[in-house]
Amino acid sequence: MSKRTLSAAIIVGTLSVAAVASAEAVVVSKAITEAEVAAAQQAWCGALEDIGATYERDGQEAAKTLAGNVIDAAYGYQMGVVLFKPTLTVAPQTFRSTREGALAYFVGGDPEFPNDTGFALKGWTNCTIANNAILITGDSATTMGNVSITGKDGSVTTVDKTWQFVKDDAGALRIVLHHSSLPYVAQ
Amino acid sequence: MSKRTLSAAIIVGTLSVAAVASAEAVVVSKAITEAEVAAAQQAWCGALEDIGATYERDGQEAAKTLAGNVIDAAYGYQMGVVLFKPTLTVAPQTFRSTREGALAYFVGGDPEFPNDTGFALKGWTNCTIANNAILITGDSATTMGNVSITGKDGSVTTVDKTWQFVKDDAGALRIVLHHSSLPYVAQ
Amino acid sequence: MSKRTLSAAIIVGTLSVAAVASAEAVVVSKAITEAEVAAAQQAWCGALEDIGATYERDGQEAAKTLAGNVIDAAYGYQMGVVLFKPTLTVAPQTFRSTREGALAYFVGGDPEFPNDTGFALKGWTNCTIANNAILITGDSATTMGNVSITGKDGSVTTVDKTWQFVKDDAGALRIVLHHSSLPYVAQ
Amino acid sequence: MSKRTLSAAIIVGTLSVAAVASAEAVVVSKAITEAEVAAAQQAWCGALEDIGATYERDGQEAAKTLAGNVIDAAYGYQMGVVLFKPTLTVAPQTFRSTREGALAYFVGGDPEFPNDTGFALKGWTNCTIANNAILITGDSATTMGNVSITGKDGSVTTVDKTWQFVKDDAGALRIVLHHSSLPYVAQ
Repeated sequence: MSKRTLSAAIIVGTLSVAAVASAEAVVVSKAITEAEVAAAQQAWCGALEDIGATYERDGQEAAKTLAGNVIDAAYGYQMGVVLFKPTLTVAPQTFRSTREGALAYFVGGDPEFPNDTGFALKGWTNCTIANNAILITGDSATTMGNVSITGKDGSVTTVDKTWQFVKDDAGALRIVLHHSSLPYVAQ
Repeated sequence: MSKRTLSAAIIVGTLSVAAVASAEAVVVSKAITEAEVAAAQQAWCGALEDIGATYERDGQEAAKTLAGNVIDAAYGYQMGVVLFKPTLTVAPQTFRSTREGALAYFVGGDPEFPNDTGFALKGWTNCTIANNAILITGDSATTMGNVSITGKDGSVTTVDKTWQFVKDDAGALRIVLHHSSLPYVAQ
Repeated sequence: MSKRTLSAAIIVGTLSVAAVASAEAVVVSKAITEAEVAAAQQAWCGALEDIGATYERDGQEAAKTLAGNVIDAAYGYQMGVVLFKPTLTVAPQTFRSTREGALAYFVGGDPEFPNDTGFALKGWTNCTIANNAILITGDSATTMGNVSITGKDGSVTTVDKTWQFVKDDAGALRIVLHHSSLPYVAQ
Repeated sequence: MSKRTLSAAIIVGTLSVAAVASAEAVVVSKAITEAEVAAAQQAWCGALEDIGATYERDGQEAAKTLAGNVIDAAYGYQMGVVLFKPTLTVAPQTFRSTREGALAYFVGGDPEFPNDTGFALKGWTNCTIANNAILITGDSATTMGNVSITGKDGSVTTVDKTWQFVKDDAGALRIVLHHSSLPYVAQ
């Protein structure tokens, strides 16, 4: 790749495509970058805050519509399954491998999931992420660490959280694994 | 691949290589199969029971040696990091991204990890796995579900567990992510 | 995965999804199988024959429409690039990294590619594949071997051909690399 | 990943590992970068020149030893197969899916491959690479373009060349596909 001079850059989704002059190489990478991971995590935090704010301002139906849009854009249920263990679910509905189960967890109101009261409706603010480690295997990226959210009363809840992302055909990262748990407390 | 007749099969690690007659194709796959995932999960359960039995029979040092061998063979610390959140760890040592942290969790006795009492030394038996979902992304495989283990007093502990496996150059699956948590109990 | 009993199987594209009874695991695999590779290769051969037959029966425009559909379904140009070195192209248009360049090669008639006479219009029949080796890396599969096609006069042309396939979000394999060359003839 | 400050960087092979202060994330990426691809290509060119120079200076045995070392370090035969179609091979030994076949092509002298005269012994100099396109799928990277080499008489030979690289456990890129062909010449 001697004397390589990029003449233009085109973005296709977040797939980076370098369009180049006659003798130069076109480079397309589907590999996931650390920056893409950070952006996807921040987007999750932002969505949690947005759903709560929408609920406060516009009510349950508006919050449910937004939550559905967030799930469709940020999770990978269209791929066939998502491995999702939310923080507060209990057996026999601990795991939410379907879109319906995820939506019920976030906004409640689904008689099929009677224990769900709507995690995203509780007015969380100031969602922050402190990764302990990130592993990019090639076609997926996995993160583990703490996520802290502030409740209406100002108290901070910190959870242990694992996410795995894949990049879809359009170049967007999608969550295919989400395991969230409260910290262990010694008895 | 018309008229394809395999004449022999050679196993290189668990990379399946089909060695074939003159006009036939050699096929090598690094993709992970569901059967390989199941075997790796069962191996983890077996190792947990073995470490406990070795401790009972031969003591702490023997158990520690075995646990180190298990970590070296079944986890991916040589790749640079493992995303490991054991069931019972607490901050600021919740995450065990190094081999030392994993070994301390399993067998204790490490002054750098003073809260660790040796999870694998407690005499667990009958470790069983009930997967909720498995996703094979291409170069890794992720599982989520319950693992149940029986204690010395006969009581059964069930945890929510996520594992991610990659296949190393020798064809062996290695754990690169392990998030284990006690089920949420509503207050 | 003790006592695993699949109760139903759902196919999402060619992503295999096993939908299971309450206590059983859902399994989704994006890994590429050897059978999928063989099917994709056969589809390429079938398309070559179809385009030629369509040209004979319905003319250039119909053949061009079909060839466009084949490219859109079987190649990965929508991902941003395909590494395509057709058998008979010459510099400075040897490589056909764009859809336009591929279409011109197959059906000709594009003033931007004046040397192209329409490779797929020549009435090839009996396209057969003899793989030398197949490597599935995880998220892609690569094949190398001979492809033989019979011309209108009954003569057989054999080329050295390499293909690389990836699986798209819908579960279909797409060609992202295609290097075809006439065998070397010692001077 | 707010307020992220890397405190140190450790290189494990070419796996980039960022070792960080207490609250910071360890990041390990097995994804292949464009820079790694460029370096691996340059290394191939350098090795070709080195083998020829070693032959001139130290003779056939020394060149064969070096070529074997190059194959072991830069190709992936230890993974079970390499898809290798050298520029000048002919049927029935066109494809060199074994280490022996590759070594015979580069340095000759193997009665099992009687047509091989030692491609790397011909004194090539000034090996340069002009990529047309590069695709990084996630766990592999594929390149297509021209490689030009200068012979002893000063004449330049340009070939159409495709390479696919994977990253091994130590973080080194390895060639798993290599298809080289002379440009088509219209009759």
